[in-house]
Amino acid sequence: MANTIKAYGVAGPNEKLQPLTIERRAPDDDDVVIDIKYTGICHSDIHTVNGEWGRALTYPVVTGHEIAGLVRSVGKNVTKFKVGDRVGVGCLVNSCRLCDGCKEGEEQFCTGHGDMPGHVSTYGGKDPKENLKLTAGGYSQMIVVDKDFVLRIPDSITLDRAAPLLCAGITTYSPLRHWKAGPGKSVAIIGLGGLGHVAVKIAKALGSEVTVLSQSLSKKELGLQLGADKYFATSDAETFTALKGHFDLIINTVSANLNLNQYMSLLRRDGSFVEIGAPEHPMTLHAFNVIIGRRSLAGSCIGGIRETQEMLDFCAKHDIAADVEIIPASQINEAWERIIKSDVRFRFVIDISTL
Amino acid sequence: MANTIKAYGVAGPNEKLQPLTIERRAPDDDDVVIDIKYTGICHSDIHTVNGEWGRALTYPVVTGHEIAGLVRSVGKNVTKFKVGDRVGVGCLVNSCRLCDGCKEGEEQFCTGHGDMPGHVSTYGGKDPKENLKLTAGGYSQMIVVDKDFVLRIPDSITLDRAAPLLCAGITTYSPLRHWKAGPGKSVAIIGLGGLGHVAVKIAKALGSEVTVLSQSLSKKELGLQLGADKYFATSDAETFTALKGHFDLIINTVSANLNLNQYMSLLRRDGSFVEIGAPEHPMTLHAFNVIIGRRSLAGSCIGGIRETQEMLDFCAKHDIAADVEIIPASQINEAWERIIKSDVRFRFVIDISTL
Repeated sequence: MANTIKAYGVAGPNEKLQPLTIERRAPDDDDVVIDIKYTGICHSDIHTVNGEWGRALTYPVVTGHEIAGLVRSVGKNVTKFKVGDRVGVGCLVNSCRLCDGCKEGEEQFCTGHGDMPGHVSTYGGKDPKENLKLTAGGYSQMIVVDKDFVLRIPDSITLDRAAPLLCAGITTYSPLRHWKAGPGKSVAIIGLGGLGHVAVKIAKALGSEVTVLSQSLSKKELGLQLGADKYFATSDAETFTALKGHFDLIINTVSANLNLNQYMSLLRRDGSFVEIGAPEHPMTLHAFNVIIGRRSLAGSCIGGIRETQEMLDFCAKHDIAADVEIIPASQINEAWERIIKSDVRFRFVIDISTL
Repeated sequence: MANTIKAYGVAGPNEKLQPLTIERRAPDDDDVVIDIKYTGICHSDIHTVNGEWGRALTYPVVTGHEIAGLVRSVGKNVTKFKVGDRVGVGCLVNSCRLCDGCKEGEEQFCTGHGDMPGHVSTYGGKDPKENLKLTAGGYSQMIVVDKDFVLRIPDSITLDRAAPLLCAGITTYSPLRHWKAGPGKSVAIIGLGGLGHVAVKIAKALGSEVTVLSQSLSKKELGLQLGADKYFATSDAETFTALKGHFDLIINTVSANLNLNQYMSLLRRDGSFVEIGAPEHPMTLHAFNVIIGRRSLAGSCIGGIRETQEMLDFCAKHDIAADVEIIPASQINEAWERIIKSDVRFRFVIDISTL
């Protein structure tokens, strides 16, 4: 099998993304070879390449962890998938399988074992299956992934709209489930972007009362159409008076440093403020704002493989998918710039046939 | 009944504590009049008088919310207590009774109703039962308290050793229960002072593995005698390597700003770091330290009346009480200075007969 494929990525420091040629590993008996059809563009792709998340880069960098495609071939130990199956790959392609996190199906919190210090990210990770070479992601024609990290995409979700669920979907579904969003619970979603718009749909489908907190009211109509019950502008000081003590759960999808003291006051007793879009700078918060009301400031990181499959099945059942704008590879650089300006409704997805 | 009583307090800004004379309200049909026998000295008494907790002071200030005594008389609506009963009063003397917090027995999180903006603190609070005059605490001979805020002290706990349980006991018991300390759980207690020494005893009685994290090993023997399984010095960098990912729950009893990024790394997946000793300055923390491991930074504030009674009964059952040093009123100023220097094993309690 030809392992040399087309990709799109960054060849060196301070360069734009450009067409590249990369090598994939020869598949082993446990691997699934996937022809990629669509890959979503996640804001974290940009953070990573810009070095904002503190990860050292080795070039070329090929990002992309919202991957949807069709199975090209499977190794002889693979029984769950067959040629032609509709599949996805998210943020993880391997983990140690032996730590508590792995054993409990939370591979995103793998603490490692042996030559594997933790989970292997879909791009920029060091996979023992590739002799610790850095992994390359989904801005590419094909990927070889261990069967245990391949997800099944339900028939009712088109591949382009399924792709972003592999990161944006699970990153929001997991905390909504963990902190028990559902009937009788009041949930706020901060930011109506790639993560936020999926969060609104899932929180609503779970039965919660859903409020969007956005800088302005410019996307209010869109937010209500997506299922939000209420929509408030955080640039309006009155919002913080009107919503004081209102929420059981606030999920912050925005990678920016907010005034946490102000946001904590919106939580009910025992409420949680959960960071999923990691701000670059340290957060600051006065202790009284967690002591009063026994509130929590917490974080959540994607989800495990089992939960990612559960999320895809939940989305299929509730007719949920990402709202996407499909672009050819030639527009990736422009799309990145538009994401930085929040000019996207709501997720760019690369048509991989244009690579 | 004579309502003019002796007390000890601060008459004006920047003054030392001194003997004072104060007035108590005339008891109504729901009130219990308590002859105070012992009152514990809580670090928060000092924080409050020094203005470190941001509360505006109106003089005189009479602190003290760890009160143990005997019932002198009861109003005609009081059936739960009778003359001579051994009783205690903690940090709360009233609340609105109508908000969700009150209805669920968590008066410490009362959000108020009508002329009551929240719970009424035992000192420095504004009680509608006293025409919103500032309440005066337990550094005094007698107190008049609504029956619903009076606790029963079990016979097996002496009044001097029971007094500190009314704040230090419930402040540690409540988060240990809320975050489910118990068999199979690993709990760290930061600081081995008034709060910390009771926290160690309660966490151990609940069945947890208990580790003390203290600046030095100077109190190690004492800590192990109190029931701690392990004792580590936080001044030793090796501690943070040895205990990485070890704890389900860390309770910070120290009113100081710690390096939270370092402490969060000691938590297991889904672990919580709980502030109960409010540091004066804002806390800072990088979001990745809650995102990785889905950790929480939370707070806890004393406990409700029902839970305070439960704590007293739990302590009686498990033979737990505070370790105290009894002082006469004339040594209160000196005791405050020794507390600031952490020179106390482990709680000063004022013998109120010396007032």
